[in-house]
Amino acid sequence: MYSYSYLFDFTSLVLQKMGFSEEDSAQCARVFLAAELRGISTHGVIRIADYFKLWEAGRINVTPDIRIVHESPSTAVIDGDGTIGMLPACKAMSVAIAKARTAGSGWVAVRNSSNFGIAGYYAMMALEHDMIGFACTNASPLVAPTFSAIPMLGTNPIAIAVPAGQQPPFVADFATTPVTRGKFTIAARKGGKISFGYAQDAEGNPTDAPTAIEHGGSMLPLGGDREHGSHKGYCLGAAVDILAAVLSGANFGPFVPPMMSYLPLLDQKSGEGWGHFFGAMRVDAFMPAGEFKTRMDKWIETMRNAQPAKGHERVLIPGDPERENEERIAREGIDLLPQIVADMKMIAQKTGIKFEG
Amino acid sequence: MYSYSYLFDFTSLVLQKMGFSEEDSAQCARVFLAAELRGISTHGVIRIADYFKLWEAGRINVTPDIRIVHESPSTAVIDGDGTIGMLPACKAMSVAIAKARTAGSGWVAVRNSSNFGIAGYYAMMALEHDMIGFACTNASPLVAPTFSAIPMLGTNPIAIAVPAGQQPPFVADFATTPVTRGKFTIAARKGGKISFGYAQDAEGNPTDAPTAIEHGGSMLPLGGDREHGSHKGYCLGAAVDILAAVLSGANFGPFVPPMMSYLPLLDQKSGEGWGHFFGAMRVDAFMPAGEFKTRMDKWIETMRNAQPAKGHERVLIPGDPERENEERIAREGIDLLPQIVADMKMIAQKTGIKFEG
Repeated sequence: MYSYSYLFDFTSLVLQKMGFSEEDSAQCARVFLAAELRGISTHGVIRIADYFKLWEAGRINVTPDIRIVHESPSTAVIDGDGTIGMLPACKAMSVAIAKARTAGSGWVAVRNSSNFGIAGYYAMMALEHDMIGFACTNASPLVAPTFSAIPMLGTNPIAIAVPAGQQPPFVADFATTPVTRGKFTIAARKGGKISFGYAQDAEGNPTDAPTAIEHGGSMLPLGGDREHGSHKGYCLGAAVDILAAVLSGANFGPFVPPMMSYLPLLDQKSGEGWGHFFGAMRVDAFMPAGEFKTRMDKWIETMRNAQPAKGHERVLIPGDPERENEERIAREGIDLLPQIVADMKMIAQKTGIKFEG
Repeated sequence: MYSYSYLFDFTSLVLQKMGFSEEDSAQCARVFLAAELRGISTHGVIRIADYFKLWEAGRINVTPDIRIVHESPSTAVIDGDGTIGMLPACKAMSVAIAKARTAGSGWVAVRNSSNFGIAGYYAMMALEHDMIGFACTNASPLVAPTFSAIPMLGTNPIAIAVPAGQQPPFVADFATTPVTRGKFTIAARKGGKISFGYAQDAEGNPTDAPTAIEHGGSMLPLGGDREHGSHKGYCLGAAVDILAAVLSGANFGPFVPPMMSYLPLLDQKSGEGWGHFFGAMRVDAFMPAGEFKTRMDKWIETMRNAQPAKGHERVLIPGDPERENEERIAREGIDLLPQIVADMKMIAQKTGIKFEG
């Protein structure tokens, strides 16, 4: 088990060694560690090695000039200058919040970025300002549009955070696919199968093989198959791609570049880097904040008190599981898998920073 | 088969007979008929009888004072004064578009409204202004949150419309459930079953009975079951309810009043009427409109040209099926089921307006 502060310091030092400023390194470390605390370890420390290798390959700009390239009273476009996604993402959400303060709402598209970690982190930045926060991003192609045989879209997650009063906030943060790809890896390691509705083979036939993607297959959009509404999951993933990338000037759909240093850059581009899209709406641009929070408390209590289905103890509010993880993991410490510890030791050795374990 | 203009004139005259102004009647008729043309007949002429009966029961205000009750440069709240949903919805989308023209984006929440027909109609209002349009609404409770046994949310649809250049626009318009309730009715009439993943019984067990809802069961959110991501469909439906109703001052969740005159009004309220939420973003608040449309054309062509899955001929873009319906139905005419013709004749008799068929 590692403490938050131990992993935070290590991550910050590694990023500084790569050439990021102390302030930027701390900002990125906060997002990596937030993923660990919230129990979304697929976007936590495990990703540091990916960025480290991208940096070794000269594919990450560590001294970016992140700037607004277009704006209106309630909108902006930010160019991330080819850096690690957390930096333009934090800047963009701050701009969205500032615009919401004066215009009521703020909407910021980002281009020339890369993987930004968990979308929920940015949506939640709005909460302390009594604003509703929104964040989404495109990602490397893994998902086939309904009726297609080819991965054309990322798992394109969406996060929405809504402040409440006495109750904890509502925080939804989800990929627009039935499950994350991590489930495939776990099933493959155990020699098991995945559920039908998660993936298809290279011809577009339903499959339960956890190695479907390695063999030319694709993940399926939320809904799983047409009969269960996968065309709606496709609509969602597509809308994210359009807002994050078509509207910002980033690469969209199958043109989104890989985040793995061992994968070559694509021959064709449709823009610059990855794309994100952020939003903030000031609650009191709609009704007094106190009144809204009382209403939101009542909404949460109403859903929480709904009769549970047979075999279930309680009805959850979006954000409950992650908040409970946060409380538990902050207390118990962060557990890293042996492979991740080995990766961190590799980085420690190369950078001369100490890593215990 | 009926022509568009025949049904448009009939619908307008019925609404005028109910007491709506000529202009308001025409506006509502346009939305009812747009649903028929787009092939979404569940929201078309069939609904006129529901409104007619609500009016007979004194539950629709035909001379509403629809007004902005709160606003900021990019946001507003509109009170629908208890009228038919199309009127505050059109007004709200117009306000969103006007605000987007000056502030870059406009976001309008509506309370004290009722069923507004198809969400896509309002999102598409943005297209001719080179704006991205957004619309969603809550609705009477039919859907159980994941792990709950009780209907707490409506089918809460979301629509997003994006302008393109040479290509037709991207128009996504979908309920946050795997299918519409209409599928249940059709299966029940045929004596068949529904797919697992659409509904649960009164205790929250999976069921394939098309009469599940009549027996105390619920529809399930998009995803169907937890294993296939129904908690993400629940997040979506919940987010719609919060934006449309908590933020506007409308009834949320289980408090949304019924649209059927034979169902009593609920004992408890959490606001006024139904709630909607609309948005418009000026494309050139992000990049020059011409550049965006060229990019959007490329996005559409890229997806359309993706290799189809085995057994499928082509990959669709959201909006393709409805646009093809529109072309065909405008040419062939609008077909009404015998029960709907009977309803229209009942209305014709009561109002003294002629209806053929």
